[in-house]
Amino acid sequence: MENLIDELLKGNKRACARLITMIENEVEGYEDLLKEIYKYTGKAYVIGITGPPGAGKSTFTDKIVKLLRTHNKKVGIIAIDPTSPFTKGAILGDRIRMNDLSVDKNVFIRSMGTRGSLGGLSNATQAAIKVFDAYGCDYIFIETVGVGQSEVDIVKTADTTVMVMVPGLGDDIQAIKAGVMEIADVFVVNKADKDGAKKTSIEIDMMLDFKKDWEFRPPVSLVISESGEGIETAFDDILKHKDYLYKSEKIYSKRLERNKLEIKEIVHRKIEKLVNSIEATQDVDKLLIKTITNEIDPYTIGEKIYKSITK
Amino acid sequence: MENLIDELLKGNKRACARLITMIENEVEGYEDLLKEIYKYTGKAYVIGITGPPGAGKSTFTDKIVKLLRTHNKKVGIIAIDPTSPFTKGAILGDRIRMNDLSVDKNVFIRSMGTRGSLGGLSNATQAAIKVFDAYGCDYIFIETVGVGQSEVDIVKTADTTVMVMVPGLGDDIQAIKAGVMEIADVFVVNKADKDGAKKTSIEIDMMLDFKKDWEFRPPVSLVISESGEGIETAFDDILKHKDYLYKSEKIYSKRLERNKLEIKEIVHRKIEKLVNSIEATQDVDKLLIKTITNEIDPYTIGEKIYKSITK
Repeated sequence: MENLIDELLKGNKRACARLITMIENEVEGYEDLLKEIYKYTGKAYVIGITGPPGAGKSTFTDKIVKLLRTHNKKVGIIAIDPTSPFTKGAILGDRIRMNDLSVDKNVFIRSMGTRGSLGGLSNATQAAIKVFDAYGCDYIFIETVGVGQSEVDIVKTADTTVMVMVPGLGDDIQAIKAGVMEIADVFVVNKADKDGAKKTSIEIDMMLDFKKDWEFRPPVSLVISESGEGIETAFDDILKHKDYLYKSEKIYSKRLERNKLEIKEIVHRKIEKLVNSIEATQDVDKLLIKTITNEIDPYTIGEKIYKSITK
Repeated sequence: MENLIDELLKGNKRACARLITMIENEVEGYEDLLKEIYKYTGKAYVIGITGPPGAGKSTFTDKIVKLLRTHNKKVGIIAIDPTSPFTKGAILGDRIRMNDLSVDKNVFIRSMGTRGSLGGLSNATQAAIKVFDAYGCDYIFIETVGVGQSEVDIVKTADTTVMVMVPGLGDDIQAIKAGVMEIADVFVVNKADKDGAKKTSIEIDMMLDFKKDWEFRPPVSLVISESGEGIETAFDDILKHKDYLYKSEKIYSKRLERNKLEIKEIVHRKIEKLVNSIEATQDVDKLLIKTITNEIDPYTIGEKIYKSITK
């Protein structure tokens, strides 16, 4: 195990992949690995990419990463994909677009599925960030497919969060904007060659202008990821936010918050396993069956379990 | 408090609204209320409506509910909306469409925001279902904006889950389909007058045909919610699934699973509060600050907290 970490620190790509798999599968001793790896972290800058389905997040990430490669930066990408019993694993459709990146030894792409518990996914994502960081990545991207709260929770642990919007979302744009406004540091309206792109960008600006006391007012830019138009401006916006975080020393409070969230998730994950083991007992099954006939209620059972595990 | 429940059981709409608010705000004694209300539940049929942003879920639900009203059914709708510090509450944009429904005393519409923790949201949604059930609703709809895992988790506690798809989602349709295939019982392709609707419906059928051993093969239908075209067929599909659940007696195992999930969430919510109270202590803050300089890692702190609360 120690050997694997040595190899990771030397920049061995296979060691990096193996460590992430071991952590994702929660193999015996994975927490000790993470404790060791943690010592070598804190150098990478983490960028979250989120937005509704169809916004073209992968293509956007792809182009940003290519730009970073022209500056000789080492990059890690964590794509959070839903999984299905039908497809038996993470969806690779989007990743295929990144094919020319994945042969580049300074770009590491990893898909993380939502199989298993969410707590598990979030833990695995945070752990993968640590591995990429120790591996020597300058920038790490976390990209999600969903616009759900859980994906948002994962992305918001990033240093800079980019919201990729797209014209033509109809009424749901209101809900999306409301749900993400509070977490986005940089906005991008992708597919800017489509009808309504300018309108979408104005809507976002107006929404942002509701708040007057911005310390860093999120910039909004128009991008056509397919052709690469606007990518440099979008990346400059990300760097502006990075500068702001370092100059204001907000980066430390942000990372403290991230670590706090991670600790909470680690505790939850441990407790989840404990609760699962209790729920798998016959005693709980006997009580559970009585909920169907209304003889007992889930709240009373929940209280019993809670009391049985806590001090 | 007892009085409020009496009023609820008599069908007092204000009592219903007040009880849900009390539970959502977790007022002192809310769990006792839920224990009492639980005795009067189990009669309502719960339908989950999910799908990507822009699919027209609200309009679809609206039309289904109007159809149910022509059969004189009492209906509850729980809309799960993201919230934002900018808008100070749940988004009402979609709900406005349901305006003519909300004046109908046999239709109860409730928006639930994702402010606060997810565990809290899920608990509040399950609790609202119980209140609607005791209130005498024949059908309860849970509708989400997101396509994230957490929203899916909430919707999948329904008896029948309807997936509303829409043409023109681009590549992301693969990911959406994969993420929801396993939980949808009925598929609807909305906005069927748009280009590509038939193609989307064929894609879904093909995906479903990968699996051979269906006990209930999800039906797929084309709908134009705006005009109401196809709504009756879609509702027949829902009823077919309902019949299947009752005839096969799967409804009981489904509700056992739902109660099991609810119990787990109740335990988690209680533990979350406990963990939050511990994390708010100076001791944890002192350890946390050391994570920035890599002197200690989040895993070690997580273990300490876990050990301090569990038996």
